[in-house]
Amino acid sequence: MTYYEKLVKHSKKINRLSHLGAICGWDQAAMMPEGGNDARSEAMAELAVMSHELSTASHLADWFNQAEAESLTAEETISLKEMKRVWQMSNILPAELVEEQSLAGSKCEHAWRTQRQTNNWHDFSKNLETVVELARKEAAIRAEATGLSRYDALLDIYEPGMTTAELDSLFADVKSWLPSLIQQVREKQNTEAVLTPKGPFFIDDQKSLSLEVMSKLGFDFDHGRLDVSTHPFCGGVPSDVRITTRYDEDDFTSALMGVIHETGHARYEQGLPQQLAGLPVGQARSMGIHESQSLFFEMQLSRSPEFIALLAPSAREAFERENDKALTNENLALFNTRVKPGYIRVDADEVTYPAHVILRYEIERDLIEGNIEVVDIPRLWDKKMNEYLGLSTKGNYTDGCMQDIHWTDGSFGYFPSYTLGAMYAAQFMSAMRTEMNIENLIRERNLTPIFNWLDRHVWKKASTLSTDQILINATGERLNAQYFRTHLIDRYLK
Amino acid sequence: MTYYEKLVKHSKKINRLSHLGAICGWDQAAMMPEGGNDARSEAMAELAVMSHELSTASHLADWFNQAEAESLTAEETISLKEMKRVWQMSNILPAELVEEQSLAGSKCEHAWRTQRQTNNWHDFSKNLETVVELARKEAAIRAEATGLSRYDALLDIYEPGMTTAELDSLFADVKSWLPSLIQQVREKQNTEAVLTPKGPFFIDDQKSLSLEVMSKLGFDFDHGRLDVSTHPFCGGVPSDVRITTRYDEDDFTSALMGVIHETGHARYEQGLPQQLAGLPVGQARSMGIHESQSLFFEMQLSRSPEFIALLAPSAREAFERENDKALTNENLALFNTRVKPGYIRVDADEVTYPAHVILRYEIERDLIEGNIEVVDIPRLWDKKMNEYLGLSTKGNYTDGCMQDIHWTDGSFGYFPSYTLGAMYAAQFMSAMRTEMNIENLIRERNLTPIFNWLDRHVWKKASTLSTDQILINATGERLNAQYFRTHLIDRYLK
Repeated sequence: MTYYEKLVKHSKKINRLSHLGAICGWDQAAMMPEGGNDARSEAMAELAVMSHELSTASHLADWFNQAEAESLTAEETISLKEMKRVWQMSNILPAELVEEQSLAGSKCEHAWRTQRQTNNWHDFSKNLETVVELARKEAAIRAEATGLSRYDALLDIYEPGMTTAELDSLFADVKSWLPSLIQQVREKQNTEAVLTPKGPFFIDDQKSLSLEVMSKLGFDFDHGRLDVSTHPFCGGVPSDVRITTRYDEDDFTSALMGVIHETGHARYEQGLPQQLAGLPVGQARSMGIHESQSLFFEMQLSRSPEFIALLAPSAREAFERENDKALTNENLALFNTRVKPGYIRVDADEVTYPAHVILRYEIERDLIEGNIEVVDIPRLWDKKMNEYLGLSTKGNYTDGCMQDIHWTDGSFGYFPSYTLGAMYAAQFMSAMRTEMNIENLIRERNLTPIFNWLDRHVWKKASTLSTDQILINATGERLNAQYFRTHLIDRYLK
Repeated sequence: MTYYEKLVKHSKKINRLSHLGAICGWDQAAMMPEGGNDARSEAMAELAVMSHELSTASHLADWFNQAEAESLTAEETISLKEMKRVWQMSNILPAELVEEQSLAGSKCEHAWRTQRQTNNWHDFSKNLETVVELARKEAAIRAEATGLSRYDALLDIYEPGMTTAELDSLFADVKSWLPSLIQQVREKQNTEAVLTPKGPFFIDDQKSLSLEVMSKLGFDFDHGRLDVSTHPFCGGVPSDVRITTRYDEDDFTSALMGVIHETGHARYEQGLPQQLAGLPVGQARSMGIHESQSLFFEMQLSRSPEFIALLAPSAREAFERENDKALTNENLALFNTRVKPGYIRVDADEVTYPAHVILRYEIERDLIEGNIEVVDIPRLWDKKMNEYLGLSTKGNYTDGCMQDIHWTDGSFGYFPSYTLGAMYAAQFMSAMRTEMNIENLIRERNLTPIFNWLDRHVWKKASTLSTDQILINATGERLNAQYFRTHLIDRYLK
């Protein structure tokens, strides 16, 4: 057996442990009764330790050296490079720091769940200071090992290759036109009459509708399923993708759009190349590319008037409301594209969403680089909310800087993925339009050419190309925020 | 850390891996879409390898030696002894034999699924010969290591401490009265008019009824759940017990009695002592004791006329059949205690069931000891079926010696557990009757004293006592087949 083959075998072994963790994690969120939690958490922690031991085994350095000297095909060389990248990422941090971070993160997150409810910034900020301090240590170690800046070194975990320089430039572009665009959309929408669909929408009916829409979107039920959890997610493994939703009897669109979003994530996973299964090179490229697929499904595709015209009849049938004026094609199209600045990121529409992300990015970047401190966050949050969305969060931590879970456990560098995803999705759609008439295809209920394009340009590429190369190969250029702007203007101002 | 503590930590680590395997195994049977099977099987196999590596780690011999020299409490001494027993069991077989058996078993079982359908004994017997040959090798190695006879060494895997000598004596007792008892019951029942409940019984209604009955039987839904699978089982972990059933719209009693049976297994698991969780000494004692709990729930308790009088009103309500004559208390009591010799073990009633088990025991004992060969099985099967149940299986392999999965993968020594369980259950019930009036308690819907007795005498004992000691402590004597006989006479001939 060559060293390359040994590394392949080793990667697949680690991947099989991830498989067990993914299924048990899904179970924990979607199936497990409350009383099973302690033993499950212990079992999952044990798995994480074993997986970490395998990922950082001391003989791997030698194996990589030996494999690099072997005669490999072009594909094997790329695969080896990606294995090495993942291995290096696993080996950068000392085990004690990882453990310290895990404890501080758990403590901060656990306390946050009550502190957020009582608007208790004072106590929360103490815990957050520890988390930030450890994240700065992590960033310094990663920066040292990679030659990147501190924040870039964290960004690299979620979006390999992305830099502060590029984000600053992309987001400066967005900031130059977004506030006035929001204003224009608001003025236009103020003249529109929209009916809010009135519940109850029975959960069994919502579930049937969800399954029907997933089928329309090509979800492979032989390799996945839909269930319920408090926080919707896409989990499982490529051969068995588990997506979840939560149903609200007063509002069916929230679960439905959520299911469509997760179906985008799911099709990416289901579409990954089988011959690279279990290898780093066969995994999804990045968080941003993953989000581009869910946002392509949810925003680019499903909130278009043409797609709503497919969805609405199914909804009227599922809920037996043939004559409900709130469920006409036209009203549902308007209802699903309403724009309104609000405090909460996860409730935001696609127009105001980037403002939430840019605000967080700017704060976490400066926090990690040491230019600001935790104590500065509320003031900056309020200032930027005013600037980008015209809202004040002064004294309101609950709906301000304490609303998200990300910082509580130290996931700095993650937020940009959301808006990168939206921009990638718009750029993919723009490129796709040069090859086909999207609206006609939707009207003809022929979505296959659309999915085939994504499969060819994104899903089957997995991690064989860098994010930049995926964009260039698929769209002819690097990421460019103008496609996202054009999409918003076309949808909301024409 | 003492060596005893090191061993405790190591045992818990192995147990946490079992936890992941148990949940992923349950998922595979109850949740997983078909297309997820290949990757899942690989992940489960990887887990089995890692678990085996941990169980057989070379430093453990030294740890056990060191721990045995340490000053331990009485409880710790018992725990250490059980850890050592499990460790020795894991270390007896050479890895190559285990792998050979796994391959031969998979091959034989896989082919059996079609061969059984086509009554193809000829081809099946070739595969079975290999399986038997390897099982004989295993038995010889285990006999050598334990000083037991070959078959006893296999029996010891499932029912530690049980021997051929004792089984021969117990089963000789049963055989001396069972055939004539079956005859008498048949004659008595021929005079009874029984109505067969007619479907459809909707699955949602059956599910509600199952959940209601599980609640009545004290199943803890904070530490477990009920789902559906092709082959019903009790899985998961003590803190989160997963039981499954399958519903038949034509017959609600089959799923209902199945759920009650699995609830018995589940309560044993849920009742195991929490302070011993994750240690061998905290596990269920044996397959026979496990079966005694499921059969106590299903046979001793739930098929009694008093319990049926609790079940029947719930059934009539669940199916909205207040006036269905087949669902009266009296008819359901008769219907659930019908006795009829048949070919198929899994469909057998509690009176004829032991005949199926004794037949298999006698054949597998002689097969492993080398007194007969695979080629002799059909003739012996037919002879014994005639002798014990008055039925011939000549030429009918499908419903004869090819009906069970057990031998296909080499699980010789397992069958006796079923009838040992039935006999343990009857003996437990007899002892319980000296302390309380079971029928009155059921009529008063006060089952707690019954469950408390089982909890005290069986569940909380886990593996801190030998099976013999559990019996003696709980009932005053070792296993005695007469209690089972008395139970059958009381229920079926009075």
